[in-house]
Amino acid sequence: MAGSSFGSHFQITTWGESHGKALGVVIDGCPAGLSLCEDDIQTFLNRRKPGQSKYSTPRREADQIEILSGIFEGKTTGTPISMLIYNTNQRSSDYGKIASVYRPGHADLTYDLKYGFRDYRGGGRSSGRETIGRVAAGAVAVKLLSALGISFCTYTLSIGDIQIDPARFSEQEIQNNALYMPDADAAEKAAALITACMQEKNSVGGIVECKIFNCPAGLGEPCFDKLDASFAKALMSIGAVKAVEIGDGTLASKATGRTNNDQMHAEDGQLIKNSNHAGGIYGGISDGSTITLRAHIKPTPSISASQTTVTTDGNTTDIAIGGRHDPVIVPRAVVVVESMAALTVADALLTNMGSQVAHLKQIYCPKNHFGN
Amino acid sequence: MAGSSFGSHFQITTWGESHGKALGVVIDGCPAGLSLCEDDIQTFLNRRKPGQSKYSTPRREADQIEILSGIFEGKTTGTPISMLIYNTNQRSSDYGKIASVYRPGHADLTYDLKYGFRDYRGGGRSSGRETIGRVAAGAVAVKLLSALGISFCTYTLSIGDIQIDPARFSEQEIQNNALYMPDADAAEKAAALITACMQEKNSVGGIVECKIFNCPAGLGEPCFDKLDASFAKALMSIGAVKAVEIGDGTLASKATGRTNNDQMHAEDGQLIKNSNHAGGIYGGISDGSTITLRAHIKPTPSISASQTTVTTDGNTTDIAIGGRHDPVIVPRAVVVVESMAALTVADALLTNMGSQVAHLKQIYCPKNHFGN
Amino acid sequence: MAGSSFGSHFQITTWGESHGKALGVVIDGCPAGLSLCEDDIQTFLNRRKPGQSKYSTPRREADQIEILSGIFEGKTTGTPISMLIYNTNQRSSDYGKIASVYRPGHADLTYDLKYGFRDYRGGGRSSGRETIGRVAAGAVAVKLLSALGISFCTYTLSIGDIQIDPARFSEQEIQNNALYMPDADAAEKAAALITACMQEKNSVGGIVECKIFNCPAGLGEPCFDKLDASFAKALMSIGAVKAVEIGDGTLASKATGRTNNDQMHAEDGQLIKNSNHAGGIYGGISDGSTITLRAHIKPTPSISASQTTVTTDGNTTDIAIGGRHDPVIVPRAVVVVESMAALTVADALLTNMGSQVAHLKQIYCPKNHFGN
Amino acid sequence: MAGSSFGSHFQITTWGESHGKALGVVIDGCPAGLSLCEDDIQTFLNRRKPGQSKYSTPRREADQIEILSGIFEGKTTGTPISMLIYNTNQRSSDYGKIASVYRPGHADLTYDLKYGFRDYRGGGRSSGRETIGRVAAGAVAVKLLSALGISFCTYTLSIGDIQIDPARFSEQEIQNNALYMPDADAAEKAAALITACMQEKNSVGGIVECKIFNCPAGLGEPCFDKLDASFAKALMSIGAVKAVEIGDGTLASKATGRTNNDQMHAEDGQLIKNSNHAGGIYGGISDGSTITLRAHIKPTPSISASQTTVTTDGNTTDIAIGGRHDPVIVPRAVVVVESMAALTVADALLTNMGSQVAHLKQIYCPKNHFGN
Repeated sequence: MAGSSFGSHFQITTWGESHGKALGVVIDGCPAGLSLCEDDIQTFLNRRKPGQSKYSTPRREADQIEILSGIFEGKTTGTPISMLIYNTNQRSSDYGKIASVYRPGHADLTYDLKYGFRDYRGGGRSSGRETIGRVAAGAVAVKLLSALGISFCTYTLSIGDIQIDPARFSEQEIQNNALYMPDADAAEKAAALITACMQEKNSVGGIVECKIFNCPAGLGEPCFDKLDASFAKALMSIGAVKAVEIGDGTLASKATGRTNNDQMHAEDGQLIKNSNHAGGIYGGISDGSTITLRAHIKPTPSISASQTTVTTDGNTTDIAIGGRHDPVIVPRAVVVVESMAALTVADALLTNMGSQVAHLKQIYCPKNHFGN
Repeated sequence: MAGSSFGSHFQITTWGESHGKALGVVIDGCPAGLSLCEDDIQTFLNRRKPGQSKYSTPRREADQIEILSGIFEGKTTGTPISMLIYNTNQRSSDYGKIASVYRPGHADLTYDLKYGFRDYRGGGRSSGRETIGRVAAGAVAVKLLSALGISFCTYTLSIGDIQIDPARFSEQEIQNNALYMPDADAAEKAAALITACMQEKNSVGGIVECKIFNCPAGLGEPCFDKLDASFAKALMSIGAVKAVEIGDGTLASKATGRTNNDQMHAEDGQLIKNSNHAGGIYGGISDGSTITLRAHIKPTPSISASQTTVTTDGNTTDIAIGGRHDPVIVPRAVVVVESMAALTVADALLTNMGSQVAHLKQIYCPKNHFGN
Repeated sequence: MAGSSFGSHFQITTWGESHGKALGVVIDGCPAGLSLCEDDIQTFLNRRKPGQSKYSTPRREADQIEILSGIFEGKTTGTPISMLIYNTNQRSSDYGKIASVYRPGHADLTYDLKYGFRDYRGGGRSSGRETIGRVAAGAVAVKLLSALGISFCTYTLSIGDIQIDPARFSEQEIQNNALYMPDADAAEKAAALITACMQEKNSVGGIVECKIFNCPAGLGEPCFDKLDASFAKALMSIGAVKAVEIGDGTLASKATGRTNNDQMHAEDGQLIKNSNHAGGIYGGISDGSTITLRAHIKPTPSISASQTTVTTDGNTTDIAIGGRHDPVIVPRAVVVVESMAALTVADALLTNMGSQVAHLKQIYCPKNHFGN
Repeated sequence: MAGSSFGSHFQITTWGESHGKALGVVIDGCPAGLSLCEDDIQTFLNRRKPGQSKYSTPRREADQIEILSGIFEGKTTGTPISMLIYNTNQRSSDYGKIASVYRPGHADLTYDLKYGFRDYRGGGRSSGRETIGRVAAGAVAVKLLSALGISFCTYTLSIGDIQIDPARFSEQEIQNNALYMPDADAAEKAAALITACMQEKNSVGGIVECKIFNCPAGLGEPCFDKLDASFAKALMSIGAVKAVEIGDGTLASKATGRTNNDQMHAEDGQLIKNSNHAGGIYGGISDGSTITLRAHIKPTPSISASQTTVTTDGNTTDIAIGGRHDPVIVPRAVVVVESMAALTVADALLTNMGSQVAHLKQIYCPKNHFGN
């Protein structure tokens, strides 16, 4: 309940600070029998690794994953999978000066108010490095889901006011540009925007969109644990996210029933939706069609322009944030959003296993026990 | 984990279907010693009761609350508070015809896919009547929070494309119009829009905004149980909500660090924020300033215009939804949003009680035990 | 977390006080498609109902169950099942005199210390009537488990120092005597013992034993949620239980590896255990053989003999408990123990559904979704 | 829900197998501001370390703890404390031969039945080495509790049929003998018994008793999360425990109300209990007096005598367990029992923080927020 665990069946617990010895995650509840190796995880982590383009912090971390438990002969055993990454490139000296000042847009003040003091080195637990655990666990969730045919497509939808043009959408293009945009033209414009921001000692926000294909119908629980509610929590729990949308999202509040309802028809006994404004979820339960999520991400709060703020002893001061920071966090957040979405689906899949007596009979009858 | 419980400390469990015998809620974890009576609850329920204006369903329910446990001599005892409302005005006959068809925009199909069959009377558990339990529990949460000086202001921000004008914002006006809008002028225009919708056998969506005043700093847990993440889940779990925003919300993705960061200064040793784009939460933890939330609500899916859909035995058909339905759900959702916000804060308050060793010492030393 | 919920998948929440308006339970997570009616529950409740023999309290309660939600056309829908019983025969006047005194062996003092005050009518929430919710829910669990071939045999093993003779064990006999003992001879002796106790204004304890047949192998989770650990919590949470044993239980601490280990052999490719000292559980996981549990129950603390105690304002006083009390609680606890055991198994069954990737494939592939 | 987490507020998650790379634990929910260093943990771990006497396995492990997160400048930060121990002295070769056979008294069979296969090296996750995480976390809990004046005394009460004589009880003696018995005479006899067992290629069980002093009143939640129920789960979750007792425990089932009730009197306005048969808990809530727990521990199942069992391919075979095993696990379980007891109390302490509105006012009013 102290907030570092996510999920009730496919449950992860992350730990570690920006400038501590290491960061990691424990996954408890991953079903037994899944092929898994460190490369499966590393591929995911490399998508969030800093220092890969001029648009991300030059802090270079190896971010090399180690799996310490839960795998035997290349397969998950059903018991906890513990993974960690040692921090190697900490420059705490960068942060000494922020020990006594509250950086605007950061959690410095709120951690002090909550705990009485804080680990001021690089944001401690509130640092973006905290997402390493999410991504390592997300890689396992994606691997599990892919064994059931479920797949993800996640990308930068917009940077500032530069949005992709749906007509130019190309899934392949996502990997081609440093911003993970599925539209080469928009990526180029966004790159220019970011460059301008950097020159102005400024930063910029953006939107990440995630599509989930082939998700089984029936996931999500009525009432409070609706699938969309779980997605909302999952995505809003990512440090810089300030809004979450499902399907048409904010447009729904301006729509009418006639335009917003997804009408349906039958074709060869198959139910076909005429549209998918709902984003694949009704009453909090997936219908088997494509699920669409969007996370709105605020601009990086660390900017080198001068800002007014307050010292820990209560005086007004000015601060220009040095250190190594991303002018835009959106591209590195893409894999974090995908990870959180996958963790949510994995958890919903397991939760739903017992939704029908018929499912229990399938698993337990005939049963595998013996005499006495 | 089956989804009908919310909160980990101030924990509620709701139950009941639209056309079952009754609906209710059990609150477990309400601290002992809070003055509470049925009127406290009834006042809240009356805000969501149907049949109160021409803009809501003419289904008339007494919606009279009964408290069955957890109160002794006018105070909460610390043990479960069970409350229920008997359904009195069910007209299941209205629903017989929808037993064999999937209504567009409803959860008919997904409940069938999840459970193998469904209670087709009025949506069963996916009905808006499910929110009765939320509101009854929300009333208790609000009462508890008000004992600590925390208060709420919740209202309709927009209906369709009619949005309130902040310059005309009037808290008193909220209770003056049937739409709970804090701007009489906007309320009038919105009423006209809804009337037009009804004539076109259509419905419309809108936005509910909630402000929380005087919330203590330090609420919310790092990482996954951030206060904003919990709000996001709470609000997105309300049937018709498709997007949730915190503070500047979606605007943050178009903003820059310079415009989005909340700079601060000191005045008489007091920290003052120059702005509140973040909506009172940093790193998932409240800073003590006003919290702002918005929920985007889709148009009521039940419309009497003809729509194409599919029967349960797989044929295309047309349907015009009869029965008694709201042309807009937004005004009745206002109290539901406030309830979910209050439940989230109450839970966060209790969770945070043990965040510092100093707090434990305050409560347990000197301790209240005796010899042996 | 406030203690009135049990189970994480088959989750129940009970509520109600001895002398409140009603008592009840909400079950969330019961799989859809189970045939269920009020008679299924009533049969169980009748086994714990007071006033049925001269060995139980003459307080006569109808204890008539009402199901308020979660059932549609005779089957569980997968959504919360709410059940309640109205209290009809409260004589609070009996309890007025205990408002200002702490009864020895009761929770009067500890409730005051925890909450600052207490509902002093008949023990409030700490009353044995609290078990009504457990038994109502237990009846549903037993019905669910019987659909999978799992069955229970629960009985009074001993009253005071009168223990059944295993050589005379008769399952049928359990229903033949008011003490639910499977040995007519022991039952007769125990009856005489209880009668003597009543004459001496005294009470007596005893042991309840529960055997679970045909439980699937694989239930229980490693480490903290071992099946035996969950049973221990389930049984120890019953008001008067002071010790819990699994299999050989306390005897194991005096045994050696040679005598305690269950050796095995193969017969026609079938694994056969030569003994079952472990009670069907190894490493916290069921092996498919018979599970054996025992709960040690203390004597009823309410006795009409005079006892020394303390008043709420801190003076020594004498008290002889009037009112209507059981001289022995053990026979009425039999169905409570069975209920808690069944709830534990039902929860473990659901938890285990996702233990293997192979199980997920069985349920989700080929999946039940449709295009778009 | 997969079983490797314990506690809801002071929540720990353990991971690691006997012969994996490492074992560890993550604590989430430890209050901020507790002084903590690796020595605090190491002291505890040394109490369970193997190879310290001739009565424990000669496997020698450094068992050197590393704290990886959650501590800043010598104090807990309120965020997750991650700790691990690398395995250094694994001799998997000892275990190759048990890959294809089910050892009597072990979890080999049940892990195979649950997960479809198992990590057969030294029992994998079901090994006693799993308790390392419990003890490391227990050390932190004990440190936290000692800051509130709560202390523990835990020891071996009996080995086989050799029980301590209460008249010779000496707390100091506990550290003087390898068996952690508080009675030098009994320790000597027990040592002789164990030596005889070893010669007979046999093993023996015993009882661990734990006393908790100065525990605040009011801990434990009504109904299912009674303090004694939580202790029962905590202790029964330790691999070899087969029975758990609170206070008089099994004796209560043979007692009468007159002998079992704890009468009370007042002395100088102070409530004094005349006895403590209940072991400090009534209605599941602590009364502030000494809490007494007992765990019955089975004999080590690994014995070098020949036993009959079954191979994984279904044939009868004989097995004599080689490798390095303890003839008695009881002395090394002492610190494990104490750790689980401390974790239970720490969790109950935090849970109880919000039991009264008065407590909330103490922490939140006047509150620590600022304008806007």
